[in-house]
Amino acid sequence: MKYEKLEKGLIYDGSPIQPFWAFTEHKVKGSSIVAWIGPLNIEPEELIDYEDVGLEIKADKMMHFIVEHFDRQPADLKTCYHRQRILVMITKDVLSELGINTTREGDDIYFEGKKLSISIATCSNSSMKIHFGMNIINKGTPDDIETIGLCECLEDMDDEKIDKLIDKICESYINEIESIEEDITKTRVF
Amino acid sequence: MKYEKLEKGLIYDGSPIQPFWAFTEHKVKGSSIVAWIGPLNIEPEELIDYEDVGLEIKADKMMHFIVEHFDRQPADLKTCYHRQRILVMITKDVLSELGINTTREGDDIYFEGKKLSISIATCSNSSMKIHFGMNIINKGTPDDIETIGLCECLEDMDDEKIDKLIDKICESYINEIESIEEDITKTRVF
Amino acid sequence: MKYEKLEKGLIYDGSPIQPFWAFTEHKVKGSSIVAWIGPLNIEPEELIDYEDVGLEIKADKMMHFIVEHFDRQPADLKTCYHRQRILVMITKDVLSELGINTTREGDDIYFEGKKLSISIATCSNSSMKIHFGMNIINKGTPDDIETIGLCECLEDMDDEKIDKLIDKICESYINEIESIEEDITKTRVF
Amino acid sequence: MKYEKLEKGLIYDGSPIQPFWAFTEHKVKGSSIVAWIGPLNIEPEELIDYEDVGLEIKADKMMHFIVEHFDRQPADLKTCYHRQRILVMITKDVLSELGINTTREGDDIYFEGKKLSISIATCSNSSMKIHFGMNIINKGTPDDIETIGLCECLEDMDDEKIDKLIDKICESYINEIESIEEDITKTRVF
Amino acid sequence: MKYEKLEKGLIYDGSPIQPFWAFTEHKVKGSSIVAWIGPLNIEPEELIDYEDVGLEIKADKMMHFIVEHFDRQPADLKTCYHRQRILVMITKDVLSELGINTTREGDDIYFEGKKLSISIATCSNSSMKIHFGMNIINKGTPDDIETIGLCECLEDMDDEKIDKLIDKICESYINEIESIEEDITKTRVF
Amino acid sequence: MKYEKLEKGLIYDGSPIQPFWAFTEHKVKGSSIVAWIGPLNIEPEELIDYEDVGLEIKADKMMHFIVEHFDRQPADLKTCYHRQRILVMITKDVLSELGINTTREGDDIYFEGKKLSISIATCSNSSMKIHFGMNIINKGTPDDIETIGLCECLEDMDDEKIDKLIDKICESYINEIESIEEDITKTRVF
Repeated sequence: MKYEKLEKGLIYDGSPIQPFWAFTEHKVKGSSIVAWIGPLNIEPEELIDYEDVGLEIKADKMMHFIVEHFDRQPADLKTCYHRQRILVMITKDVLSELGINTTREGDDIYFEGKKLSISIATCSNSSMKIHFGMNIINKGTPDDIETIGLCECLEDMDDEKIDKLIDKICESYINEIESIEEDITKTRVF
Repeated sequence: MKYEKLEKGLIYDGSPIQPFWAFTEHKVKGSSIVAWIGPLNIEPEELIDYEDVGLEIKADKMMHFIVEHFDRQPADLKTCYHRQRILVMITKDVLSELGINTTREGDDIYFEGKKLSISIATCSNSSMKIHFGMNIINKGTPDDIETIGLCECLEDMDDEKIDKLIDKICESYINEIESIEEDITKTRVF
Repeated sequence: MKYEKLEKGLIYDGSPIQPFWAFTEHKVKGSSIVAWIGPLNIEPEELIDYEDVGLEIKADKMMHFIVEHFDRQPADLKTCYHRQRILVMITKDVLSELGINTTREGDDIYFEGKKLSISIATCSNSSMKIHFGMNIINKGTPDDIETIGLCECLEDMDDEKIDKLIDKICESYINEIESIEEDITKTRVF
Repeated sequence: MKYEKLEKGLIYDGSPIQPFWAFTEHKVKGSSIVAWIGPLNIEPEELIDYEDVGLEIKADKMMHFIVEHFDRQPADLKTCYHRQRILVMITKDVLSELGINTTREGDDIYFEGKKLSISIATCSNSSMKIHFGMNIINKGTPDDIETIGLCECLEDMDDEKIDKLIDKICESYINEIESIEEDITKTRVF
Repeated sequence: MKYEKLEKGLIYDGSPIQPFWAFTEHKVKGSSIVAWIGPLNIEPEELIDYEDVGLEIKADKMMHFIVEHFDRQPADLKTCYHRQRILVMITKDVLSELGINTTREGDDIYFEGKKLSISIATCSNSSMKIHFGMNIINKGTPDDIETIGLCECLEDMDDEKIDKLIDKICESYINEIESIEEDITKTRVF
Repeated sequence: MKYEKLEKGLIYDGSPIQPFWAFTEHKVKGSSIVAWIGPLNIEPEELIDYEDVGLEIKADKMMHFIVEHFDRQPADLKTCYHRQRILVMITKDVLSELGINTTREGDDIYFEGKKLSISIATCSNSSMKIHFGMNIINKGTPDDIETIGLCECLEDMDDEKIDKLIDKICESYINEIESIEEDITKTRVF
């Protein structure tokens, strides 16, 4: 599983959730996690969550993670949502190591009751996809929901910390998935 | 998914990891999490982890959790290990809320570098099983590994706290799995 | 699994066979059976059965059932067609209890050699869908096939009987699927 | 799918539910339905239904059907229980054509409230198995449950009718499964 | 599994790789291999291989094979690529029997280092598809790759030999897949 | 996927076909191909092929290959038999490069009509296993079947050639499986 950090800020308009985006747009082939910093503004036709239909989903500056897995053929949504939860729980853990204590409900992370992140999982027949985004600043978010950004969660949050945080989340996730694969190969079944 | 707490202390000899143990021994039918407090002493023929062959696996007082899932037919080890990770991460989270800050490597939880827990996942064609055990006291554990018990992690740990901790872990896990099931029903796929 | 009866007559144009129709159109989330009374007139672009291409599929008044299942991930057509058969066989049984003795060939029900019903099953990666429709009156059906309606099968068929029939089919189907799920949890495998 | 009728009466002791019984005992290779007339007396170690543990399961004269399917790899219990229901529903239908009106609950057939049949489904990783048995006479059955035999359900039931009934059930089942396979090949999916 | 040889030369524009093409265009229902002789000129919007985007894929005269399998529900790309390899290896073998010794890399066949064939595999939720094409003459192929045709590989290659070659490949492939299905029914599993 | 060549001659008694043999006996963890030279004498209780029951299966000197795959969860026999065919076809190819022209029927390789090899595939819920053995000398084989050894197929066959042949088969197989995995990650699906 590869980790690619995009240097160029990219707007998340929903299209990166499509299968094979990492390969067709960024030449990243195979299972991968691609991360970058950029705004969020999901086009209605790119919506994956039927409960979000009609809602505005936007933010000025987020860290974005796009995960794609090819290890299950056919791919399935159930496995993908388990991995999404693992990604979100890892993030909560990494934040806690930074001193940012958050709460989690399903795939949402909150800081002092304010929404810090968004996420969705989906799949095609051949790959499983996850988008996970976390506000860096609390600007440009919808009015109807109280949100927060990482810069408000920690006093001395800076670009370097943000950068390391992104790396840490990606590396921890890759390690986790690999350790699961490895545990399979040591286990007696019935 | 049902939660059953066994009042009677039961030695964990490895046999509860067998499929249908909850039903044949405790009349708990269907997907479930069964929890109890008791010693650990795994019989060699009940070993699931091929890496543990030849090792002594024992402890005097642990909280035990046995999970069984019937929602995937056929059952598979990969899904099961994802759920094991989710169970362990939930436990780490619940401990942290109690003020016990631990670290995690795969399915092991450590407190100050000392091993607090053990876990394994396995499956048959029709069900997925997880055992997760956490030391309450640090007695009767193998000599060749540094271990610790929950009572040493928190000064005022008592029976009531232990009891609530067990409930919280089980309820959080059940909620998590149910929320995953629900997310599937709101998600557009490709 | 939920049962929803729509009070408003709805034309079946083929679109309800699309995944997530129950949720996006009627706020029915999760596995469900939705039933209503209305005409049938399938738009060519909504055709699921490649053998029906070029045929007129229409009727003036039918009872319609739309089933959606999310319990298998990934969803598959084979399971879905087994369930379609179970739904049709349950219907034949319920009709027989009313004194209407029919014959069945695959997913078609006949009364005295005349076609009483139509059905199709399909799926996406995440859900399995079934449409089953049964003529209430024998009007507006294609000329090239001999059809019949329930009102001609039983002398004293009335709105109340129709209504109860719909409920009985839906409840029996839901019970059947649930009893299958339950049987899995009592069965030793090899 | 092959149909084999065994001429020699064979006691059903539970062992025919084991995978590959048709091949190792009767040289019937591949997916098949094997039928015969004989007593029932299930050995405790052959029990498949955990709810039957401790019960006597016996009868003096039954028609037995053993189904084995190799068309899903890996085999799964959920598909198998769907097929079991289809087999039982087909039987109810065929009985009804003979003038024997029965009721059904899950996989049990009743005549005037008395139990006429027994059934179980199971699987290994590579094949799905069903046993379905129906009393011909009401002798040798357990005392704690009211049972009945086909000879009591119909006045002029005789060996020839029994024989034709067996053939009809098997042929209808085979046709049904084949028609499902065929429907898959005409169906547009999403 | 059916074998259909189309007499009429057909241009391969990429559309035959779509699911159900054999049925909707040629009334071949179910799992099949369809073969014909014709040019190749893949429309960009029909491209399946993301690595081919932007490339010209064309040739004046090829033998084409389109395989479709419905035996796995859901269908999956991994199984399909295994079958593609088997088809290509069978072809290499059949060519070798004709005295044409080739080399193979993945799904490509080479003669004296020159590309003789192209292939792709894909699937929908319900069927697995393979296209395999082999140059008969070396005309109309892209300039940027060295290609060759069967007529240059063997001095006395003629229409009858080509015709028999097509038959041999198709029959061998069908036999192989059927022999795999049969081996499953003789094998003990753990 | 790992390749391990055992230096110590080992008798193939059938036990290496059991899941996790590579790990429990030779510390080779994960998907692997293990090869060695040694006699064959399958114990009746280790038989996997029900058609071999009662037959003597033995030889004095063979090259043995044991493959285990953990990449599909649950593992299935159908995928495993496809891989077995690929392994056998690769071997036929590699032999042909050495100047040994053989024929193949399913998983058997023949030289001048004499049987050169044996093979079986099987699986548990978590891994797929293949045994492939090829006679080096034609000694100790059953009387009722005409067999041959590699040393009779090629005049100057020696230990070094045998050794390189084993390496070539293993490496080619590993490359093939890896190239299939990679092709999945470049393919558009429907």
